[in-house]
Amino acid sequence: MEQKGFTLWFTGLPGSGKTTVSQLVAHELRQRGLRLEVLDGDVVRTNLSKGLGFSKEDRDINIKRIGFVCKLLTRNGIVAIAAAVSPYEEIRQHNRREIQDYFEVFCKCPLEVLIERDPKGMYKKAIAGEIPNFTGISDPYEEPAQPELILHTDREKPEESAARVLRRLAELAYLPHRYEKKDAETSQRDEEIIRRRLEDLGYV
Amino acid sequence: MEQKGFTLWFTGLPGSGKTTVSQLVAHELRQRGLRLEVLDGDVVRTNLSKGLGFSKEDRDINIKRIGFVCKLLTRNGIVAIAAAVSPYEEIRQHNRREIQDYFEVFCKCPLEVLIERDPKGMYKKAIAGEIPNFTGISDPYEEPAQPELILHTDREKPEESAARVLRRLAELAYLPHRYEKKDAETSQRDEEIIRRRLEDLGYV
Repeated sequence: MEQKGFTLWFTGLPGSGKTTVSQLVAHELRQRGLRLEVLDGDVVRTNLSKGLGFSKEDRDINIKRIGFVCKLLTRNGIVAIAAAVSPYEEIRQHNRREIQDYFEVFCKCPLEVLIERDPKGMYKKAIAGEIPNFTGISDPYEEPAQPELILHTDREKPEESAARVLRRLAELAYLPHRYEKKDAETSQRDEEIIRRRLEDLGYV
Repeated sequence: MEQKGFTLWFTGLPGSGKTTVSQLVAHELRQRGLRLEVLDGDVVRTNLSKGLGFSKEDRDINIKRIGFVCKLLTRNGIVAIAAAVSPYEEIRQHNRREIQDYFEVFCKCPLEVLIERDPKGMYKKAIAGEIPNFTGISDPYEEPAQPELILHTDREKPEESAARVLRRLAELAYLPHRYEKKDAETSQRDEEIIRRRLEDLGYV
């Protein structure tokens, strides 16, 4: 069975868990034999966003550009996973229209919690005025109007959030039913391992 | 049989036939049932290069960026066709290293012929100093050191050049031997049509 392409788009404030959850999901999807690409962090900064800043215009160009690459991958049967603050609804809607199978995941976490956690000290710097145009502090974040899924990353563990994404993808028939391998025995063994891990995550 | 991804990269001076030949090749490959994406002209300007100019630095970013998208497509089994002046050998070599299966086509045409033809009047403007940083006139073009194929677009017709590209791809086993379709009869008929067209082009 040929795999169906889709784009899994994580949006949310800085530090809301987009990268962490998306990496867990990516790992699990790779285990299932899906071909996928992750567009996130350094990959995007090095290869797509060089020269862009944090003005609204530059942010919009950046998000559309990541969306364009997701679109190409998706329409060719590849899974694209993007994790980007992507604060503006209009541009997310643009990508939704452009991308054939677009699945939006909103990592929702109250600002107070993020300021409290702040592992990299970014919020502290932003509040002190040392980082301009910081989303949530000195730049707006527009919550998604109709995300396919909302993750409450203040009270869910990343593993729980990842399991919820996988469950929703399965419900929407984006995941293959069987893990395909040539050797049936290997395949069964792998399936069992995966089944147990997903069981641990509350996925099955 | 699953298709093998590769990148077909057309380089050459402005007006040397990159777009024309690449479109013919793309058409033929689509007829053969290959999944492919063309990264060229408006597609690139709108979706990847916005904000970049024609300084060496900006050109390098642009060519690397197109190369990055080609790399993602190629390693996922998709054919990527790029047509870009891409004047600097160093950056083309960078893409060659990055992309798993990279096939470089140099559209070679003497500058005098291009200035003579000049259908869009670009060379005329560049010579008059109205277009700065114009490759071939006020900006350098470094010829490829080891292209997979050289097309002499001053003396070959575009159809001949396209046929040469297809022949070389077939020799390198990048093209599937059979045109895959569910209905065997339809398949045979299509094959016959394609065979004749390719025959006209001197491909078989």
